[in-house]
Amino acid sequence: MTSIVALAGGVGGSRFARGLRSAAGAAELSVIVNTGDDVTVHGLRISPDVDTVLYALSGVVDEKRGWGPRGDTFRCMEALERLGGETWFRLGDLDLATHLRRTELLAQGETPTQVTAELARRLGIHDVRIRPMTDSPVETWVELRDEQGWVHFQEYFVHRRTEVAIRGVQVRGLAEASAAPGVLEALAAADAILLCPSNPFVSIGPILSVPGVRDAIDTARRRGVCVAAVSPLIGGATIKGPAARMLSELGYTASAAGVLEVYAGLVDVYLIDPVDRGLSAEIERHGARPVVADALMRGRRGEARLARVLLKAAL
Amino acid sequence: MTSIVALAGGVGGSRFARGLRSAAGAAELSVIVNTGDDVTVHGLRISPDVDTVLYALSGVVDEKRGWGPRGDTFRCMEALERLGGETWFRLGDLDLATHLRRTELLAQGETPTQVTAELARRLGIHDVRIRPMTDSPVETWVELRDEQGWVHFQEYFVHRRTEVAIRGVQVRGLAEASAAPGVLEALAAADAILLCPSNPFVSIGPILSVPGVRDAIDTARRRGVCVAAVSPLIGGATIKGPAARMLSELGYTASAAGVLEVYAGLVDVYLIDPVDRGLSAEIERHGARPVVADALMRGRRGEARLARVLLKAAL
Repeated sequence: MTSIVALAGGVGGSRFARGLRSAAGAAELSVIVNTGDDVTVHGLRISPDVDTVLYALSGVVDEKRGWGPRGDTFRCMEALERLGGETWFRLGDLDLATHLRRTELLAQGETPTQVTAELARRLGIHDVRIRPMTDSPVETWVELRDEQGWVHFQEYFVHRRTEVAIRGVQVRGLAEASAAPGVLEALAAADAILLCPSNPFVSIGPILSVPGVRDAIDTARRRGVCVAAVSPLIGGATIKGPAARMLSELGYTASAAGVLEVYAGLVDVYLIDPVDRGLSAEIERHGARPVVADALMRGRRGEARLARVLLKAAL
Repeated sequence: MTSIVALAGGVGGSRFARGLRSAAGAAELSVIVNTGDDVTVHGLRISPDVDTVLYALSGVVDEKRGWGPRGDTFRCMEALERLGGETWFRLGDLDLATHLRRTELLAQGETPTQVTAELARRLGIHDVRIRPMTDSPVETWVELRDEQGWVHFQEYFVHRRTEVAIRGVQVRGLAEASAAPGVLEALAAADAILLCPSNPFVSIGPILSVPGVRDAIDTARRRGVCVAAVSPLIGGATIKGPAARMLSELGYTASAAGVLEVYAGLVDVYLIDPVDRGLSAEIERHGARPVVADALMRGRRGEARLARVLLKAAL
C-alpha cells in the first residue's frame, strides 16, 4: 500500500493534512506534528500543533480562526481574568477539555504518542495516524532583538503576537530527545514525504531536528523517495503566522525561494503559487523542481486540490 | 477588638460563616477551613471547602446548590466526557478558573494560605480572613464496608455519592503537617471559638487533628474562652451531607447529642434546634450548655440570626 508521510505544524499544516486525506485515496497517511510549541499553562499540558491537527481532521475546528474548536466560549478565561490570572494564552471552555484529558493521561504515565492516539480515536479520526514528533520534552525558544533575550515560543507567538523582531530560534531538549515510536519507521516506509505549508523555523524545523529524522529522510531519498513541499509563502507573505517576518529577521529572503534556503537541499519538488512563477529558476538552483498551482487553500476543495497536485508530482 | 475564630467545612460551614460576618459587627472574624477534602483532578489542585467558603462570602455562590459559582455552565465537562475523561468530579467553566489560578500560583511556589488570600482579595472579601487549616498536603480517606478498602474522601463523597457504608475515617499526612501560618495565633487570640454546623468527622475533625490546634483550643478554654458549636443535625438528620449516616456507621448516635460524643468534651455551648430540645439533659452530660434556636439556616437572615444567637451565648 502506498504510504504518505506529512510533516506539519499548526494551521497551514492541519489544512493541508486535511487536503491530503481527501487526495490520498487508499494510501496510508501519517502526519508527524511539531511539538516544539508545547507549553504548560496553569498546570495543563498544551500541545497546540497536535490539537490543531486533531481539531482539523476531526472536523470540529473553527474554520475562521483555523484553530480551536468551533463554537467555543471563553467563560473560564473571563472568570480567570477576574481572579487576576494570566489569560494571554486563551483557552476556550471546550478546548480546555482536551488539555485536561491530556494532562490527566500524561499524569497516569501515558506518552504524548498514546495520548494523541486516544484523543484522535475519541474525536473519530481513524483514517490518518497523527504522531507527535517526539515523546521527549522539547521547547522552541526564540531570541528577541535588542537584548531582550530568549523567550518561550508561545511568549513570542501568543503573548507578544510576533510583534517583536527576533534573531534566533532554538529547540531546547533536542539533544536528549528521540523520535516518537513509529516516526522513523513511518519515514522508512514512506513512498512520499511531504512538508506542509508550515513555518520552516518553528514548525517543520523542529521536526527535522529530532535526532534520526533527517537521516531517515535522507535514506528514503537515496532509495528514490521524493520530498515534496508546499511553499508557506505566497507573493512573499504568509496567510497566517510570522514565517515571512522570521525569514527576513533571520537573514533569509522573505519569499517562497527563501524557504528553500532554510531547507538547504532537502526538497525535491516545490509547489509555488502562480504569483511566484518568477522564482522558478531560483528554486531550481536550490535543487528543487517547481510545480505551479494555486497555493491558497480556499476551503476544503482548495485543500484537496492542492494536495492532489503535490501528491501527483511526488509519487 | 473582639476576635472570633470559626472552624468550617463546606456548605453548612460557609453559610454559617456568612451569618457570622453579619452578626460579628466590628469583631474580627477568622474562618479556619478544612483542607482534608483537597484533591488533584486532571492536574488541577482543588480545595472544595475553601472554595465553597470563598464563593459564599464573596456572594457568587449558587444558593440552591450551596457550592460552586452561580450561573456556572459545564461545557468543558461535556467536551471532556466526549473525550472519554472522568467527569464525576464536575467542574463548571467558571469554577475551573479558580482551580487554574490555584494550580498556577502553587506552581509558582505560593502556599495554600497565600493562594487563598489572593483569591479572597480578588473576589472582594476584605472583612473576613479565610485560612486553610494547613499548608501541608493532607488527605481524608474513608474505609468502605464489606472489604472494599480505603478510598479518597472525594471518591466516596462525589463519585459514590456517599451511597456506600463506611467504617473508618483517616486524615493522611497529619503527622507531618503543621498548622498554617496564623491558625494557632488566631486561636490564641480568640475571644470565642465556634464550630460551624459541618461534618464532625470529615470537616471539623481534620481541623481539630492538625498538630497544635487541639492544644491551642484547650489553652484558650483554660483562659475562659468558650467553644460553641452548632449541631449539624436537626431531628437526627442533616440538611446536606452524610454526617448522620456516618455517625451511625461509625458507632455513634445519629443525633445532635451524638455529635458531642465525637467532640468528646470540647464543646462548652451547643446550639440545637427546638425539635431536639429533648436532648438537653444528654447534652449537659457531655459537659455542654444547650442553647435552643431555629438551627435551619433559611436564607441570609436565618444564617445571621443563628450566628447572633451563638455569638451571644459564647461571648
